[in-house]
Amino acid sequence: MLVKGKHYLTVWMEGRTVYMIEQNLLPFQFRIFESPNYQTSCMTIRDMITRGAGAIGATAGFAMAQAALEAPKETYQAFIDHARKEIEATRPTAYNLFFVVEKVYEAACKSPEKAFEEAQRLAQENVDDGKKIGEFGNTLIKDGYRIETHCNAGWLGFVDYGSALSPIYLANRSGKKIHVWVDETRPRSQGARLTAWEMVNENVPFDIIPDNAGAHYMSKGMVDMMIVGADRIAANGDTANKIGTLEKAIAAKYYNVPFYIAAPCSTIDMNTKTGKDIPIEERSHDEVLYSNGPDKQGDFHTIMTCAPGSSAKNPAFDVTPAELITGIITNKGIIKPTIEEIKSLF
Amino acid sequence: MLVKGKHYLTVWMEGRTVYMIEQNLLPFQFRIFESPNYQTSCMTIRDMITRGAGAIGATAGFAMAQAALEAPKETYQAFIDHARKEIEATRPTAYNLFFVVEKVYEAACKSPEKAFEEAQRLAQENVDDGKKIGEFGNTLIKDGYRIETHCNAGWLGFVDYGSALSPIYLANRSGKKIHVWVDETRPRSQGARLTAWEMVNENVPFDIIPDNAGAHYMSKGMVDMMIVGADRIAANGDTANKIGTLEKAIAAKYYNVPFYIAAPCSTIDMNTKTGKDIPIEERSHDEVLYSNGPDKQGDFHTIMTCAPGSSAKNPAFDVTPAELITGIITNKGIIKPTIEEIKSLF
Repeated sequence: MLVKGKHYLTVWMEGRTVYMIEQNLLPFQFRIFESPNYQTSCMTIRDMITRGAGAIGATAGFAMAQAALEAPKETYQAFIDHARKEIEATRPTAYNLFFVVEKVYEAACKSPEKAFEEAQRLAQENVDDGKKIGEFGNTLIKDGYRIETHCNAGWLGFVDYGSALSPIYLANRSGKKIHVWVDETRPRSQGARLTAWEMVNENVPFDIIPDNAGAHYMSKGMVDMMIVGADRIAANGDTANKIGTLEKAIAAKYYNVPFYIAAPCSTIDMNTKTGKDIPIEERSHDEVLYSNGPDKQGDFHTIMTCAPGSSAKNPAFDVTPAELITGIITNKGIIKPTIEEIKSLF
Repeated sequence: MLVKGKHYLTVWMEGRTVYMIEQNLLPFQFRIFESPNYQTSCMTIRDMITRGAGAIGATAGFAMAQAALEAPKETYQAFIDHARKEIEATRPTAYNLFFVVEKVYEAACKSPEKAFEEAQRLAQENVDDGKKIGEFGNTLIKDGYRIETHCNAGWLGFVDYGSALSPIYLANRSGKKIHVWVDETRPRSQGARLTAWEMVNENVPFDIIPDNAGAHYMSKGMVDMMIVGADRIAANGDTANKIGTLEKAIAAKYYNVPFYIAAPCSTIDMNTKTGKDIPIEERSHDEVLYSNGPDKQGDFHTIMTCAPGSSAKNPAFDVTPAELITGIITNKGIIKPTIEEIKSLF
């Protein structure tokens, strides 16, 4: 996707170097980080210089390839075995990371070159999956559509294209006139910060709206469809995604607004039977009580946004039951959120 | 209600002086403003030193009484006529302000003393109405209830007690164990700032939650009821209130959580037939794009919370249809949101 008019991926590898957008600086600064070795790449995942399931997976795969290229011939196997463990320990809950690292590790057992090729192939697959989601999703978007999205399921979370935003990019590029309602997505404001940053750079018409305003615009007939991403999709179609997704899905149902999940098939976890089996992470309460950003002079501050002495709760995700979901846009096509249609993907 | 253990009203009058909490400094500073004359009282309304329909109304009534007490005998009538116009021009859309000023003006036409008495009587009526709402509402609250509220419909918006929070105060004081979920209420964060400040001072157990989290807690069975205030109630029960109220009402309906509006009868506008007739104010987009507050050293900053180059929308209110409202808690009792029951109040 475009950044200031130039095409970028979130992460890529040339020679032994991994390059990535420093996502922790966005949206206020755009900088490319150069990681010369696998241990530095591990650090970029751990310290969230790179973020988003797909981007993390690709970075981990490249890190595994770096390890294979760096490994001394005499201790090759021990070196890559150790590196694999180190890479896997960076973000222990990231499912996609394990999937990619295993594949690149298997290739590394053959040769460093095979590892490099496999890491590149998997990164390209990530791009292709995003593009396919975009193509399938674009068939749902009509000229003049006003599309609401929540959080950031854009290209920054993948290698390119993204999930929920990919259909929006393809619709915009194909000349359809669209307008995007970008939910702010408190408390971390990924909508206002990352999705809005993507929209600005890709020149997609949009407005940030407070999370409170979605139902209001639906009630006025000003939302034609909603597309969001997914953190995990259970075998029955129940979907865990950023907190607030559930509330939007309920409002969309009430106002008959089509509500779509967009995600690559790798997001579907057949071992999770229903949404009830998905644990919800409780994050730091400071994310609710404080806010940070630059003032008009560009100096960064962390400010208190609540009454002193307050406590808070901060559930990071919620689970949207399948009955509220119109369809799931995957890289293999658009399906209904039923056990039968989900099984048919595999 | 209590502030640091001491009882306060939001606004009161002694002699010719009007005293009020400087609400524009809350929640970070607590200070009482002394207004020596009616023109200064006008300024406090215009500059939002005092805020909230009920508190504005009482302040305007006191200002009218101040004018009567200040008026030279020779030009008495011309002085109070002019003062009335000046007071009414401070917040031209505030319905309650006109109601109170008219009554105090009529008394002022008789004598300054009558004006003073009438202003005091109306302020006391505001307190009594809030207390009655609290007593009726408290009958709905069971021991152990977890109650969600949106925005600030507390005592700060009235002279004392408030509307949505009054039942919560009376339940808490009567020894019921309750817990309040305080919606942050973006973009102005009246929940996190004002409602939380009231809860801290009245020692009511609470947590601030992101506006995105309400439906999540409802889905977990962790919300027993919801009470919110109202800016205007139409003759058919449709209710305009802070943006986000509608979304909560839809979620509450989906999860069978009782959803109550609390408001004095003066909030009901029989000339507004349905919610469709209520215009929605669009406020400054900067409220969405910027945030302000103190850093850890107590220095105040305004920071940007979104991607540079973003635009935003900021509807201040939404309309909740009567069908989503379980009941309306008024100073005359709890009614269903139907034309018949609303008419019976008058």
